[in-house]
Amino acid sequence: MPEPLRVGVAGLGTVGASVVRVLTEKADEIASKAGRPVVVTAVSARDRNRARGIDLSNAAWHVDPSQLARSNEVDLVVELIGGAEGAARACVETAIESGRHVVTANKALLAKHGLAIAKAAEEAGVAVGFEAAVAGGIPIVKTLREGLAGNRISRVFGILNGTCNYILTRMEKEKLGFAECLADAQRLGYAEADPTFDIGGFDAAHKLALLATLAFGVEVDADGIYVEGIASITPLDLEMAEELGFRVKLLGVATRTETGVEQRVHPAMLPKDSAIARVDGVTNAVEIDGDIVGALILAGPGAGGDATASAVIADIVDVARGLRLPVFGVPAKSLAAPTRAPMATHKGGYYIRLSVIDRPGAAAAIATRMAEQGISLRSIVQRAQEPDGERASVAPVSVVLITYATNEAALRAALDAIEADGHIDGTPQVIRIEKR
Amino acid sequence: MPEPLRVGVAGLGTVGASVVRVLTEKADEIASKAGRPVVVTAVSARDRNRARGIDLSNAAWHVDPSQLARSNEVDLVVELIGGAEGAARACVETAIESGRHVVTANKALLAKHGLAIAKAAEEAGVAVGFEAAVAGGIPIVKTLREGLAGNRISRVFGILNGTCNYILTRMEKEKLGFAECLADAQRLGYAEADPTFDIGGFDAAHKLALLATLAFGVEVDADGIYVEGIASITPLDLEMAEELGFRVKLLGVATRTETGVEQRVHPAMLPKDSAIARVDGVTNAVEIDGDIVGALILAGPGAGGDATASAVIADIVDVARGLRLPVFGVPAKSLAAPTRAPMATHKGGYYIRLSVIDRPGAAAAIATRMAEQGISLRSIVQRAQEPDGERASVAPVSVVLITYATNEAALRAALDAIEADGHIDGTPQVIRIEKR
Repeated sequence: MPEPLRVGVAGLGTVGASVVRVLTEKADEIASKAGRPVVVTAVSARDRNRARGIDLSNAAWHVDPSQLARSNEVDLVVELIGGAEGAARACVETAIESGRHVVTANKALLAKHGLAIAKAAEEAGVAVGFEAAVAGGIPIVKTLREGLAGNRISRVFGILNGTCNYILTRMEKEKLGFAECLADAQRLGYAEADPTFDIGGFDAAHKLALLATLAFGVEVDADGIYVEGIASITPLDLEMAEELGFRVKLLGVATRTETGVEQRVHPAMLPKDSAIARVDGVTNAVEIDGDIVGALILAGPGAGGDATASAVIADIVDVARGLRLPVFGVPAKSLAAPTRAPMATHKGGYYIRLSVIDRPGAAAAIATRMAEQGISLRSIVQRAQEPDGERASVAPVSVVLITYATNEAALRAALDAIEADGHIDGTPQVIRIEKR
Repeated sequence: MPEPLRVGVAGLGTVGASVVRVLTEKADEIASKAGRPVVVTAVSARDRNRARGIDLSNAAWHVDPSQLARSNEVDLVVELIGGAEGAARACVETAIESGRHVVTANKALLAKHGLAIAKAAEEAGVAVGFEAAVAGGIPIVKTLREGLAGNRISRVFGILNGTCNYILTRMEKEKLGFAECLADAQRLGYAEADPTFDIGGFDAAHKLALLATLAFGVEVDADGIYVEGIASITPLDLEMAEELGFRVKLLGVATRTETGVEQRVHPAMLPKDSAIARVDGVTNAVEIDGDIVGALILAGPGAGGDATASAVIADIVDVARGLRLPVFGVPAKSLAAPTRAPMATHKGGYYIRLSVIDRPGAAAAIATRMAEQGISLRSIVQRAQEPDGERASVAPVSVVLITYATNEAALRAALDAIEADGHIDGTPQVIRIEKR
């Protein structure tokens, strides 16, 4: 029998406990797939006495995860502590310095320090697996890193945050407001007490940064991502989307453009019969557009202890089998410096909802401002306040414009002019249209 | 610079030409991912003079693919000849005997001789990649073999034949008959002149056999697959499906049951809002149900020269990177002998369309026969011939029954009794319902 792979698990929350449980319960099946036994020899967590429903009697206990990372009883360290700095970062860095392989679910850490970690790991000759850091149980890292080697990828995009997708799905199906759905998500455990990280788009941005690096061979550049959350989306937007043939999703999108890599996280209108548009609830989904494979779609559970553990274990088995790849698929030193395509040059269609002060000439003035910027309108929908067309009051009316592809700078200039004209009330709602 | 991986390509049809072209045009990118150059050093095809749009001036030419397979100028043989016997089989066997790695798109060969080939390859210490053999460009083999190591899989199923899905989609959307859509598929090159292999379900069965082996760790057992094609599906079935909340797809389904592995290819009703039901046209899609990951869905192009080449190249790069896995994920000698769950014990719901001779007592007799077998009906739809309910003629009327889950033996017994009673005209149409 070959030598076992000795695994240390740092962080025993839901995912960590699930990893230990599965490695123990399925030891035979996993050994058969791995070609050698995989044994949990050490763990680290703060509270030794918490009931976790797993047997830790054969594992050494370390209060300090870095001590686990350098201990002689492990060959591979699973980092499930979380956070871009502190204990998590120290644990991963110590593991690599000590020649231990690393498997982590820590998107924040890799989004910030991914390049340095990849360089260190490649110099030390150890593997760093991070399948669990992006889209939970979906094998998107493996697919990008190994499954599409012959492809030049033009775009990778999708639903990377289950909390946002749950909220948008509820808002749409039940015609509820954002705040109410967020409160439900919190009650059900889909959203944190402080939900900013999810609903502000920052969690999706961390994942997108890693996908962009894998897809385009550029250094991780989380700071270069344009980020917008979902808090401004209203039931009216979802209703108008439905009427116009779209659905609204929080997307992470990375595209290769002539001026560099465009990375953005924002609510987007998708044609309602497209694959990503149809993904509901907490499910995640990613589409990869490759020049030879075409459009490939992966969908599945993006979070949850077991689904995330599934990804962690696949990475552990890869290491046990001897797989040693550069962290991001190509050597870290050959990753290109990121060239950021600024949002001003973003090209696409737009949904614009305006509260127009309903007086003669307003519509003409708005249309003129759009035309001045060379923007063509595909649809204009004005909701008459009274079915007989009589003007019932001087309250603003909602006007929705759908533009043909234009660029963001032109659109912003047109909207600034419209605002300055004084025909609209409040700030225009702008939602980008993502092409299929 | 490390030694190049020398590749021989046997079979220069659409896929082979695409493989050579991509390996040549993207040599630098592929070398960066592979960690070493990948060079086409030899090719084999019958007609040397055919224009293929690729530069073969640096490749040795072999008329006999087995000669290529044993030549000293290749480390890896790409077999794209096709067929379960003859030149393809000889080429693969010779390559393995000669210590060459193999990458193949040949589902027929592996469905028939997969176990022997895997054993031989594992003894010889060479890799056999077959990503391209199942669902074209979708990385389903990698996902099952590597991406889900911690999972016990209960079911793998999906749309494995683009020709059938194209025909069913056209029939449904345009309310056309089977023959007309098949003729269109042939005109567009989606179906062969002799379409039996596709529309009869045999192509899907070959792919399913390989998926079942990967998912369940059992020996390849293509002969144990229950196969039914799509030729009997009528526009009326698709219309009734729509009315009842289903869509009809040709599915390959492999499930783990208490009595063994159930493998079946047949048209199936799927809840219309399920992910696989929504896949249209020539696209393939596979769902994997794992105990810890949950439901994972992969969708993409299932055929075409470039999409298939994408899978071939990913396999080549894996070999170049040094990946050496057992062919089916676990050592071939540890694959379990297949225990076939017979179709008689299949459990599920059914759609049954009967041409009922419309006379008093017919409906009661049919319902009684179902009840005798313990079958509960979820829906009964009878299409009145005249809107006012008057009986217009004695011609049979279509009656559609949707059953709750039952087993196939009970259903067949009930239908036999109904036929014997003489209340129906012709053979009942039976379409299994696949649960989400």
